[in-house]
Amino acid sequence: MVTEAADPPFSSLAAFRDLLARMPSPDEAAREQARARNDQLTKPPGALGRLEELAIWLAGWQGQEKPRIAAPQIIVFAGNHGVVARGVSAFPAEVTAQMVANFAAGGAAINQLAELAGARLDVIPLSLERPTGDFTRGAAMSEAETVAALSAGWQVVDPGADLVVTGEMGIGNTTAAAAIAHALFGGEAEDWVGRGTGVDDGGLAIKRQVVAEGVARHGGAVAADPLAALALLGGRELAAMAGAVARARVEGIPVILDGFIATAAVAPLEKAVPGALDHAVAGHVSAEAAHRRLLDALGKVPLLDLGMRLGEGSGAAVAIQILKAACATHSGMATFAEAGVSEG
Amino acid sequence: MVTEAADPPFSSLAAFRDLLARMPSPDEAAREQARARNDQLTKPPGALGRLEELAIWLAGWQGQEKPRIAAPQIIVFAGNHGVVARGVSAFPAEVTAQMVANFAAGGAAINQLAELAGARLDVIPLSLERPTGDFTRGAAMSEAETVAALSAGWQVVDPGADLVVTGEMGIGNTTAAAAIAHALFGGEAEDWVGRGTGVDDGGLAIKRQVVAEGVARHGGAVAADPLAALALLGGRELAAMAGAVARARVEGIPVILDGFIATAAVAPLEKAVPGALDHAVAGHVSAEAAHRRLLDALGKVPLLDLGMRLGEGSGAAVAIQILKAACATHSGMATFAEAGVSEG
Repeated sequence: MVTEAADPPFSSLAAFRDLLARMPSPDEAAREQARARNDQLTKPPGALGRLEELAIWLAGWQGQEKPRIAAPQIIVFAGNHGVVARGVSAFPAEVTAQMVANFAAGGAAINQLAELAGARLDVIPLSLERPTGDFTRGAAMSEAETVAALSAGWQVVDPGADLVVTGEMGIGNTTAAAAIAHALFGGEAEDWVGRGTGVDDGGLAIKRQVVAEGVARHGGAVAADPLAALALLGGRELAAMAGAVARARVEGIPVILDGFIATAAVAPLEKAVPGALDHAVAGHVSAEAAHRRLLDALGKVPLLDLGMRLGEGSGAAVAIQILKAACATHSGMATFAEAGVSEG
Repeated sequence: MVTEAADPPFSSLAAFRDLLARMPSPDEAAREQARARNDQLTKPPGALGRLEELAIWLAGWQGQEKPRIAAPQIIVFAGNHGVVARGVSAFPAEVTAQMVANFAAGGAAINQLAELAGARLDVIPLSLERPTGDFTRGAAMSEAETVAALSAGWQVVDPGADLVVTGEMGIGNTTAAAAIAHALFGGEAEDWVGRGTGVDDGGLAIKRQVVAEGVARHGGAVAADPLAALALLGGRELAAMAGAVARARVEGIPVILDGFIATAAVAPLEKAVPGALDHAVAGHVSAEAAHRRLLDALGKVPLLDLGMRLGEGSGAAVAIQILKAACATHSGMATFAEAGVSEG
């Protein structure tokens, strides 16, 4: 399905939630065809491990027996965060805009990884001059701001893409991600707070305190409505990732999730409507310890574990290669009959 | 260094061992330059995790500050095994030749993965009509046969390649690999024996028995000379992989090891001369449980864990993409100074 107009079909969080509840399912017929094909390929059953599962999963979401990744799209959203004033990051807030300039100039990690993957790269700065509110004192964003960010994400997805990766840049956004995860999945603040880009012990203590304060203030509202986490504790780039992942589902485009922040950004969708992330695979588990905990809570098993913790969509961009390998083997291999090979 | 003639500089196992003991070391200057460059790239220190380590490691072996993978070579050796007559495999021995034909026709998994990686693929069948001897009754190969197989591996390495992957096809060769690993690293036969391509419970019991018998017969000789394991318990494709990995070291070409068999094939090198595999990284850990045990014994941490267990070099071929990502980011990213980004 290709949506002709990119205008988002929601103008409130309630309408966005209703949309999530009506999301399309995978194409069962294509998935069954892919499964049958997989059983006939010249290899012992199951010998390609997760590559086989991924090919069948991709077939279902792309609606074709032989899935392909010929036009992947990587979208990096950038935002700034009011809580940075509390001292939660090792880098100053102006680095967000500096890194956006670095993306534009082609000098960042994600530029190299997008080129390697043959992916289109879109970088969307979101009101960098206007940080979100400090969520320990009030809502990070109003509902209107949140809907605007969701819409920005929704609109930038290319309906012609056959795979979407969402990434982010935003000094302070591991703090927002930790607050969302803590509010959604409980535990203690320290379970969800790590060093991010490399905060020292003092900064780490502040970060834990800020997350605890934020969840003390907004936890009840998030328990009542998981999507409210994006407004109360989130940030523009997080809500935009959520909007893009929802749009991908509507378009039948599979998604690779990146690290802790990208995963926390979409966790409210799954919490609001179980199954809302069935079209998304975890590209990697990052070195930010809370990411593994969050993936466990979402039932996602990461494809890669390379100790990465950069964001920018970088881990997911590397994982594109794994999905390409799954497509290449599934779609290109001969069957036992074609090759004249004896089955076991 | 490029060796002009491909004629192997050894004509006995003793000469091959002497060669291993004179292997070149990595280029420390290039490695230091790469390390210094890595510290200046626009990312928090360490944020690319293993990609950073891999880039620095590649720089050392390739002898250049900015490593590259533009001409990878995948070499798949095929051989047949006398122990197949004992019933150790789920597939009949003729599948080895059938799969070689499938490689030639482009229908196997490794064909697709080589194309995806932009790799040259060489397939080398080794006297398939002449299986090795049953190692429970005598030596699998004579010294002359073993040197011939080592030489076949040595000669096929392209000195112009910038990365080498060694893979294999050989019905019954997880049994040979298990026997080598058991003889080199001890434990019990069942620690090293798995289902391979998918043997049933009865076949698994036979396989354990065959491995135990082989190690009972040849274990003492292997303890005295680890390289003897290739002749006494190995196979032509295993010895050829060992020869190719040794040649890569002499040429300054880094290597990605594939699964259990490819790793067992080169374990005698490391056991004979510690450090002989320093130019090799483990591409993945396979679903054959003994592979993780073997990697632990060798001190290798795998790049991927995708439940693959196909052989053919397939897991290592997927891992080429990880090394390419390491090169792309290390060599392509801007420094903080170039990009005008504030350091943390």
